[in-house]
Amino acid sequence: MKTTVHNPDLARFVEAGTLYLGATEAAELVRRQGVARCVEAIAHNIHADFMRWADFDKTARVAAHSDVGVIELMPVADAQRYSFKYVNGHPGNTRLGLSTVMAFGVLADVATGAPLFLSELTLTTALRTAAMSALAAQVLARPGSRVMALIGNGAQSEFQALAFQHLLGITELRLYDVDPAASAKLVANLQGSGLRITVCASTAEAVKGADIVTTVTADKRNALILTPEMIEPGMHLNAVGGDCPGKTELHGDILDAAKVFVEYEPQSRIEGEIQHKGADFAVTEFWQVLLGERSGRDGADQVTVFDSVGFALEDFSALRFMQQTAESLGLGERIALVPQLSDPKNLFGSLRATAAVAA
Amino acid sequence: MKTTVHNPDLARFVEAGTLYLGATEAAELVRRQGVARCVEAIAHNIHADFMRWADFDKTARVAAHSDVGVIELMPVADAQRYSFKYVNGHPGNTRLGLSTVMAFGVLADVATGAPLFLSELTLTTALRTAAMSALAAQVLARPGSRVMALIGNGAQSEFQALAFQHLLGITELRLYDVDPAASAKLVANLQGSGLRITVCASTAEAVKGADIVTTVTADKRNALILTPEMIEPGMHLNAVGGDCPGKTELHGDILDAAKVFVEYEPQSRIEGEIQHKGADFAVTEFWQVLLGERSGRDGADQVTVFDSVGFALEDFSALRFMQQTAESLGLGERIALVPQLSDPKNLFGSLRATAAVAA
Repeated sequence: MKTTVHNPDLARFVEAGTLYLGATEAAELVRRQGVARCVEAIAHNIHADFMRWADFDKTARVAAHSDVGVIELMPVADAQRYSFKYVNGHPGNTRLGLSTVMAFGVLADVATGAPLFLSELTLTTALRTAAMSALAAQVLARPGSRVMALIGNGAQSEFQALAFQHLLGITELRLYDVDPAASAKLVANLQGSGLRITVCASTAEAVKGADIVTTVTADKRNALILTPEMIEPGMHLNAVGGDCPGKTELHGDILDAAKVFVEYEPQSRIEGEIQHKGADFAVTEFWQVLLGERSGRDGADQVTVFDSVGFALEDFSALRFMQQTAESLGLGERIALVPQLSDPKNLFGSLRATAAVAA
Repeated sequence: MKTTVHNPDLARFVEAGTLYLGATEAAELVRRQGVARCVEAIAHNIHADFMRWADFDKTARVAAHSDVGVIELMPVADAQRYSFKYVNGHPGNTRLGLSTVMAFGVLADVATGAPLFLSELTLTTALRTAAMSALAAQVLARPGSRVMALIGNGAQSEFQALAFQHLLGITELRLYDVDPAASAKLVANLQGSGLRITVCASTAEAVKGADIVTTVTADKRNALILTPEMIEPGMHLNAVGGDCPGKTELHGDILDAAKVFVEYEPQSRIEGEIQHKGADFAVTEFWQVLLGERSGRDGADQVTVFDSVGFALEDFSALRFMQQTAESLGLGERIALVPQLSDPKNLFGSLRATAAVAA
């Protein structure tokens, strides 16, 4: 006897298969909602999920490194939903006309293992990274922060800019990139945003006087994007680009003089800016601040660092937003990623023409 | 300047996106080729890949356990290709009309991280598990083995039966399942196969006189499917169903008296029949026998056990077969799992209607 399925997501899966949202339709979804609304909704989900941190089965991501890049799997689960993201990082890809970072992922039902939702996550990763950055800055940056330096003006920079404008009230951007064409692209893409934008001749010039410094560079090496003499009291540093072993952006002395916040300590010790520090280097997990278990910024002059590497839970939060929004807008299609068998104990029978197959 | 892409798989990806083979088209592929030819070709790939064992970056799978089942990710890579499989195990699923095991996976390009091929792997897992079992038995069972007991007659049993018929020369099957309907289904599905089949009243009756005993039961618990008094000298035991912590099929004394072979020791110590044994319990990795580094069966009276849990490399081998066959038969479709950007540094620009999006 078949049991009735009460979970509506699972009922739709049983009836029609996995909901698939490809890159084209994800872009359509974001166009219809607007980047700001998407980032805001994802930040809301991340906040809610970080507030119930203990509910999640967490693991550091599983990385396969090669000479030219990395491919990672990032799983996480609570009692109801499981998600994973596939994501690569290959700085040389743009020479081939490919993105440095490409991603996709799945939201599944813990009770049955059913893959409910398959989605592109390249665009979604940019949205959720910006959402996470802005959420952290809402909590950690000085109130009234208005000026942000944005170092690294590549594929993620527009999302960071808009997230900080809409979630934090940033009104002025100071840009720097080693490639002037990248900054020109960013300026062009932000036309009509209302942000006041200055393109600077160096990182130091961009950082000078900023309330918040966001670094989002892509080189796979230990770079020194920010050095101690650039840092002013009270700055909040949003370090996004350093996110795997051998890839960092900040001079170690900056970390020593600052209060450092991370997403998930076991992963950040391997991948974050703090990878060069000892195991006793003090960090605070961001969820602890949200829950009031630990303090955030301790004063107006303190330098705060959000050493962001990207954690699976943020993708979980983003996948739930993309799924719900795709459903409500009628975007995406149902696919048979796994077979829907009339008799699940008879996989072989699903091949039909049995005699011929067995012969 | 764009670099020319020389890898043909990658060139097709750049041109047209990820090749997607859904469950319906995978079934069509297997129907056209026949189960026996598919299993044979996959066994050939597994053999070739196991012969170059050292070329692979291997990790034990990453499992998320719940009270009712498990969801796993199984990644593996060589210098050219990366693959992972998503697979669940939920014995209660059939009550909901869902399969106990559902799977899908991806074959990607190590040099760029591009997801070249997305495929259903539910049917494919059944094929590759049977291929691995038969390949191991070719090497480990006594020459001239003709009679196989098949304990557990669920979704995987037909594939095991046909693999052993075609790759080993098994002519007679002796079946047992706690559910007589499962055995009846298996008998019906194997009509026309040429196998001589007897349905038995107990495991002991089925096992008596068999050359090979295959156990492929699905309960998530430590069951005692085989007990020492059933085992005869020279038998080869193909233990497929015990494949996660707390789920085993063989009495421990059987292992003590036999020579035990595994796929990948670090994973099998956690998931295999040997999970109840100490870290010093001797096992041989199967690739070592293939390469001649270690002996296989040491005599006609020795009991050999292939303690199979399913290793990511087998899925890698199977994914390559499915990709090549789908390409050559023109099955599957190209999808935009990740965006194909005209300018990969301008993800935001791909949203078009820029002003509206930024506003």
